[in-house]
Amino acid sequence: MNDLLLRACRREPVERPPVWLMRQAGRYLPEYRALRARHDFLTLLRTPELAAQVTSLPVDLLGVDAAILFSDILVIPMALGLELTVADGTGPVLGGRIRNDADVARLLPFEPEDSLAWQLEAIRLTVNTLAVPLIGFAGGPWTLASYMIEGRGSADFRLARRLLAESPALAHGLLDRLADAAGRSLAAQARAGARVLQVFESSAGALSPRDYQEFALPYLARAVRAARETGVPVIVFAPGANCPLDRTVRATGADVIGIDWRTDPAEARARLAECEVACQGNLDPALLFAPPSVIRERVAAMVAGFGHLGYIANLGHGVLPDTPVEHVRAFIDAVRLVARPGAAI
Amino acid sequence: MNDLLLRACRREPVERPPVWLMRQAGRYLPEYRALRARHDFLTLLRTPELAAQVTSLPVDLLGVDAAILFSDILVIPMALGLELTVADGTGPVLGGRIRNDADVARLLPFEPEDSLAWQLEAIRLTVNTLAVPLIGFAGGPWTLASYMIEGRGSADFRLARRLLAESPALAHGLLDRLADAAGRSLAAQARAGARVLQVFESSAGALSPRDYQEFALPYLARAVRAARETGVPVIVFAPGANCPLDRTVRATGADVIGIDWRTDPAEARARLAECEVACQGNLDPALLFAPPSVIRERVAAMVAGFGHLGYIANLGHGVLPDTPVEHVRAFIDAVRLVARPGAAI
Repeated sequence: MNDLLLRACRREPVERPPVWLMRQAGRYLPEYRALRARHDFLTLLRTPELAAQVTSLPVDLLGVDAAILFSDILVIPMALGLELTVADGTGPVLGGRIRNDADVARLLPFEPEDSLAWQLEAIRLTVNTLAVPLIGFAGGPWTLASYMIEGRGSADFRLARRLLAESPALAHGLLDRLADAAGRSLAAQARAGARVLQVFESSAGALSPRDYQEFALPYLARAVRAARETGVPVIVFAPGANCPLDRTVRATGADVIGIDWRTDPAEARARLAECEVACQGNLDPALLFAPPSVIRERVAAMVAGFGHLGYIANLGHGVLPDTPVEHVRAFIDAVRLVARPGAAI
Repeated sequence: MNDLLLRACRREPVERPPVWLMRQAGRYLPEYRALRARHDFLTLLRTPELAAQVTSLPVDLLGVDAAILFSDILVIPMALGLELTVADGTGPVLGGRIRNDADVARLLPFEPEDSLAWQLEAIRLTVNTLAVPLIGFAGGPWTLASYMIEGRGSADFRLARRLLAESPALAHGLLDRLADAAGRSLAAQARAGARVLQVFESSAGALSPRDYQEFALPYLARAVRAARETGVPVIVFAPGANCPLDRTVRATGADVIGIDWRTDPAEARARLAECEVACQGNLDPALLFAPPSVIRERVAAMVAGFGHLGYIANLGHGVLPDTPVEHVRAFIDAVRLVARPGAAI
């Protein structure tokens, strides 16, 4: 078993930083598109054998140091009774969006072993054959709430922000349910065999520091605590969060903090100097459209900025759908190259 | 003439901070919707008498301390030859988006007095009757480029970021044209009677610190310099910019820096302690959906965070379309109330 990721999460010495990419099992891979041509997204998601197959693709094809379960943060809203529709070309849409107390009261009870049995089965199937650690994941409570209120992704989540202002008690009730669901989903994924867990608090950047403190952080912290009780390290990724990074780390107890591409690596490390935490990230995914020589130069700067200890090389957000596979390879190779003693870039 | 805004821009003593709202002449006003029911957006924009009428609406109806010209950042791309379409319910769309050198070569020459004569005429008409200063504005070069490359607004401007990575020389050529156009448009607006100028670098937050430094800041600085040569103070608003605020202020020489709702007021002031600059902003526009008592409390915290000197009260982004007019009034009144000696909140 390649355990680079596990050692990096615990800030133990490594020969080189582990490398994987957010959304590495996605549309940029011809092998994924071939599977999608035969099965729709929800079928891939809910058929454990297919989900396991997709999860392993980038490990087999690209040699990354970790697999991340092929799934979606919206499986929890779906398990709670909202209808998920995924059409090509547009983002996913949730039917039955949350507008009032009755909408929250109508949500189904959440039992990961029942509600998301197919997800846990996919984990069990995947880890049987995998030579790298599997990362399980869930959306952060505020992020799940923001999608459930908007019904879809949004540039600024203004409907969700409006609901926080108009109906804070409703928001807290919803967030309470989601903190419980996310925490239990993560813990169940660890019990099924995930060796690392990641929480995607992707809508963090929509909130003012004060609202992040009130509506995101306490619920995120609850979900992370529930996940960490399984003994598995937890990565928190809250891109664009508008409070100092160290506050998120201290409040959640995260083992690893994800850094998005809009944060300077050295500044992130300086902010976190007094926290016992590893970092993950952070190249702009759009930079994978640059020539490989530029990719290598940027990877070298990124790794130099973070240092080798307690660092997981990754992008600062998910791989973009049209990214050339050869450039993804250049990214992965550059991490390996830069770590060699005396390597020239 | 109410000169509170001008004094605040120069960090001179004021009885109370001036207050206006970004997008204050917009859909939340019934009087605006009535005009829009009779004229489409582009007609309002390009008919000086109508644009002047819309510009004055919030001054007459709400008593704000400044008017901002009814216009759009996309008038420059339109003047350069891209076709602007504005349909209700969706954002504006630009036809003929920029993909290659030929697309840039095809752009029309920009002469504000010819290309945007109707905009300058609207300014001349407005200032004749206005008892508060008029703010002219333009999009920042990177923001204009991002819309011209995407063809529309975007949650993450990934096509535009991709173009920066794939074709940096093309990007620099386009940005050069746009820095020139934005600077000259701003200067022409000052000559026509605008007393303050604002640059909206609204897509700043999409870029990594390194790309902001390379593709946004130098061009923004050129546009601001051209605007300031007219002797008029310039407000730079670069929401979500991922470099320290003081770097943007130092690089551009801005008189006022806009602060978005995701930045803590006291932290902004601390960052800017060594800059001679005023601040403008920053309540989350979604908070105008909260009850007036909450709005008053948040305005008090905002004004306390920024202090009275060199401060312009505003939202941290544009007013949202469904905002209750009474809550906008509560915001404006709260700024006046909080500034009274011994005022209780």
